[in-house]
Amino acid sequence: MKKLSAVFLVSILAFQLYAQAQSAGKIEFSSMPSEILGVDREFAVYLPKSYQNNPDKKYPVLYLLHGGGDTHTAWPEKGGLEAAANQIIDSKESAEMIIVCPEAGKIHMNYFNDSEWRYEDYFFEELIPYIESNYRAIPDKNHRAVAGLSMGGGGTLVYAQHHPEMFAAAFAMSGYLYRMNLSFLDPNDPETEKRQQIVERNNAVKLLQGASEEKVKQLKTVDWFIDCGDDDFTFTPNMEFIAALKEQGIPYQLRVRDGGHTWEYWHSSLYIALPHISDVFRELTQK
Amino acid sequence: MKKLSAVFLVSILAFQLYAQAQSAGKIEFSSMPSEILGVDREFAVYLPKSYQNNPDKKYPVLYLLHGGGDTHTAWPEKGGLEAAANQIIDSKESAEMIIVCPEAGKIHMNYFNDSEWRYEDYFFEELIPYIESNYRAIPDKNHRAVAGLSMGGGGTLVYAQHHPEMFAAAFAMSGYLYRMNLSFLDPNDPETEKRQQIVERNNAVKLLQGASEEKVKQLKTVDWFIDCGDDDFTFTPNMEFIAALKEQGIPYQLRVRDGGHTWEYWHSSLYIALPHISDVFRELTQK
Amino acid sequence: MKKLSAVFLVSILAFQLYAQAQSAGKIEFSSMPSEILGVDREFAVYLPKSYQNNPDKKYPVLYLLHGGGDTHTAWPEKGGLEAAANQIIDSKESAEMIIVCPEAGKIHMNYFNDSEWRYEDYFFEELIPYIESNYRAIPDKNHRAVAGLSMGGGGTLVYAQHHPEMFAAAFAMSGYLYRMNLSFLDPNDPETEKRQQIVERNNAVKLLQGASEEKVKQLKTVDWFIDCGDDDFTFTPNMEFIAALKEQGIPYQLRVRDGGHTWEYWHSSLYIALPHISDVFRELTQK
Amino acid sequence: MKKLSAVFLVSILAFQLYAQAQSAGKIEFSSMPSEILGVDREFAVYLPKSYQNNPDKKYPVLYLLHGGGDTHTAWPEKGGLEAAANQIIDSKESAEMIIVCPEAGKIHMNYFNDSEWRYEDYFFEELIPYIESNYRAIPDKNHRAVAGLSMGGGGTLVYAQHHPEMFAAAFAMSGYLYRMNLSFLDPNDPETEKRQQIVERNNAVKLLQGASEEKVKQLKTVDWFIDCGDDDFTFTPNMEFIAALKEQGIPYQLRVRDGGHTWEYWHSSLYIALPHISDVFRELTQK
Repeated sequence: MKKLSAVFLVSILAFQLYAQAQSAGKIEFSSMPSEILGVDREFAVYLPKSYQNNPDKKYPVLYLLHGGGDTHTAWPEKGGLEAAANQIIDSKESAEMIIVCPEAGKIHMNYFNDSEWRYEDYFFEELIPYIESNYRAIPDKNHRAVAGLSMGGGGTLVYAQHHPEMFAAAFAMSGYLYRMNLSFLDPNDPETEKRQQIVERNNAVKLLQGASEEKVKQLKTVDWFIDCGDDDFTFTPNMEFIAALKEQGIPYQLRVRDGGHTWEYWHSSLYIALPHISDVFRELTQK
Repeated sequence: MKKLSAVFLVSILAFQLYAQAQSAGKIEFSSMPSEILGVDREFAVYLPKSYQNNPDKKYPVLYLLHGGGDTHTAWPEKGGLEAAANQIIDSKESAEMIIVCPEAGKIHMNYFNDSEWRYEDYFFEELIPYIESNYRAIPDKNHRAVAGLSMGGGGTLVYAQHHPEMFAAAFAMSGYLYRMNLSFLDPNDPETEKRQQIVERNNAVKLLQGASEEKVKQLKTVDWFIDCGDDDFTFTPNMEFIAALKEQGIPYQLRVRDGGHTWEYWHSSLYIALPHISDVFRELTQK
Repeated sequence: MKKLSAVFLVSILAFQLYAQAQSAGKIEFSSMPSEILGVDREFAVYLPKSYQNNPDKKYPVLYLLHGGGDTHTAWPEKGGLEAAANQIIDSKESAEMIIVCPEAGKIHMNYFNDSEWRYEDYFFEELIPYIESNYRAIPDKNHRAVAGLSMGGGGTLVYAQHHPEMFAAAFAMSGYLYRMNLSFLDPNDPETEKRQQIVERNNAVKLLQGASEEKVKQLKTVDWFIDCGDDDFTFTPNMEFIAALKEQGIPYQLRVRDGGHTWEYWHSSLYIALPHISDVFRELTQK
Repeated sequence: MKKLSAVFLVSILAFQLYAQAQSAGKIEFSSMPSEILGVDREFAVYLPKSYQNNPDKKYPVLYLLHGGGDTHTAWPEKGGLEAAANQIIDSKESAEMIIVCPEAGKIHMNYFNDSEWRYEDYFFEELIPYIESNYRAIPDKNHRAVAGLSMGGGGTLVYAQHHPEMFAAAFAMSGYLYRMNLSFLDPNDPETEKRQQIVERNNAVKLLQGASEEKVKQLKTVDWFIDCGDDDFTFTPNMEFIAALKEQGIPYQLRVRDGGHTWEYWHSSLYIALPHISDVFRELTQK
């Protein structure tokens, strides 16, 4: 029986090597120093098929944010990022791009600035420059996008409002956009409460409603896309964000598909997000 | 820091419990004795949402076969079966059904009969009766279907030819239908060679080409569906199977979508297979 | 040249006859007397493939309402109803059903009761009974559904609120749910103004918001589905209807896809509506 | 009553004007002189939204061929080309492009050269130059594609084989690739017989099977895409073309979706073809 097991394992390995050779887009795990946060921060990075063999080619970059309770490994491990990205790019539905999954779930779990943990500053002042220095990224607005799910959808919509000059596109999936009293969050837990307060201070809907005329003009240079399931508990806030976009006269796209706050939804959302973001890059650079 | 980590874990747990409560379709792992094989055989079984609370309700059954190099845990763990089935059934695109994933990858890896390992006999004489005795299955042809990927797609198309009186529908994904000389299979490995010979003896294409008029008449009582990626190494054999169906005058459906021999393909195939099989059950029982 | 032209025409005709023979689902145009309205009312009716050759079979019925500015010929002629229904039913994604397109655009253009033109009464007291007497319809709630676009989406959502005991499902596409000041409607045109007032008296959102507890209980026996494009001018009212459903605790499904107030959207909506309505019928009758 | 009818018509007109203003991509009908054919040839041309207001912008061009029994009005009138193209481009799934529908159904009905009617010469020597002189086309291989349905799918696959230096992409829908004995074609009709002989002399499968090594190298510079319904009578020839592509080592994409030889299929094929062709243009020009 032992012999058979060994053969069996060899077959699997051979098959996996075969599968690997077929499409070379790969996720790597890495980390970088952060002076702002005082600790190293991890990240995952998807490098497309041609990255290794085409040393002169530069790529657009998508920053893809994870949700609450997760870390930078969520998109790779729960979201099937590598397989989906390879499938989408191999079919030409999306151009090749670098996809960066930052880590915002350990130590403190949020995407925003707090007195002791200035994550947003880290993101803009350290992470983006680090990526653009250490990977062959095209370092301009027209080749940079941000997307994310749940808490990361909130991060997406706030980051792109704070820095419309930085992103061609913002794509939020099931965005958690402000404090909600959810049955599975313990109101007596101080860490949860603190996180909720930070989120509420970065209420993406109010931020947009209060945008000045000048700011709205800048926001129109970003391509906005909201994707949210009809059963998702974040549905109403997302519709409020849409209403605010409409009120401000900012063009957007919206999809409401069947589903809830699930990886099944977010994985399939990659099949919308990657082609769309690629189309936005194309439109901006071919004009 | 320790305290925060604990809180962090509690939040995750709470969220997972919440997610769990939302849709109750569940996969269980179990095993059963087999006299034919001389050992216990494992299996996984998806029981739909209403199964626990509706003790009088009976369900149709789909037997969903894994591929070579895998076991009964492949559909649950790599194929995302539970999440996909819950999503599809919650949207009403498919009626509730029981889904059984047999184990055919350990000890010997194939779906057919061999002198020392009569797996096909086990499947029909022991597994199906065991499921229909131990779960609330509707035990007739009009409420029973078989599907599978790769080696399991081959199993699907042979089982439904051997026993058209047993299945309403046969749905093969990227079926491995006869011996192929694939670069990742070692021709000098005796176990691989033996498996190839067994598959070749159960060549699904030749079996169909050689079907008698009487057999063809029976095969027309099964709904046949082939799904295979345009980059899949099993593409040509699957087209030969289609040609044989056409030659024999047997109606079928075919989908060729973008992709290769990947879980990305098979996971998305569930979104075609489950609604279709459900539609076949409906059509047969509402006539 | 003349001879060639004749041959050319014969070829086309032959091809069309061929196409016709392939799928026999057919739309017929007819009319019926109405005592309530004092004139004959036209309608179109899609009869599925088996209708002619299966004289004992009875079918569920979908009432499919046209929009403002159109008549009963709109779904057949602009919406591609026959081809889409045949395609969807042939693939088994929907069971066979009878589809009735009433005429509500001539003489007076609306779906509701007015002192001089009691269209809603005609619909419930004359049209439905006429269809169920003159076609092989299954005449009960579990086999009856209503759907419609724009003004007909408004009709759909009001009819199903007025008569939840009559419909298994209500499916509104880009529903025009209350008076809107649209640039292409002339506020000085008395007929337009009158129509707007009638629509506003039948405001589908307010009707739902004001539903009693008893009424809500009845509304839960209907399957509600809203489909509306992200660029549609009816988007906001439809989201208000969704908010009212949520507020009342009534389950629903929502899809927001890319598009505006166009036939391109409504034609593709048939590919969602027909399978879904068929699934609702199945679920109700297989329980 | 008369007055009401007038109002009714005005409303419709207003709505159509409104719809028209929303998306400005437009189809125009035109004609051009042909010395080769000795008569003027008609064509339809889709000019995207920005064409009128952006007098310096140049566009890629797709030549979109109609099928047997049809003319240049088929894609506009039966295929819903304008609405589909506007929808696809507005969503950014495709970049703007000019789409030309040549006329190849009147007088003689085929895409190839015959002693008395050198249509293929007209296409390459007169039509393409005329379009590129009279419209703001980007006149190179990387911005030119050919697609078509049925007889036009055959034209597509032969044109791109004869002139791989002319096209970035070839996209065939339900291609009629060689003489088939179809029940709806009259074998005793001399015009039909002549057409069949011309098609058979331009057998797209044989042409590819007989391609030289040098030719195959050139063919690899074209992006090949086949889309054919599982119930289509052209299915087998299209699979033979795929087998020939595979045999020659030429990359391709294939989709087999549900359906037959119908406009329902071809209309939906635009939603695959336009984004894909746009993606091919992007990939070639961003490298």
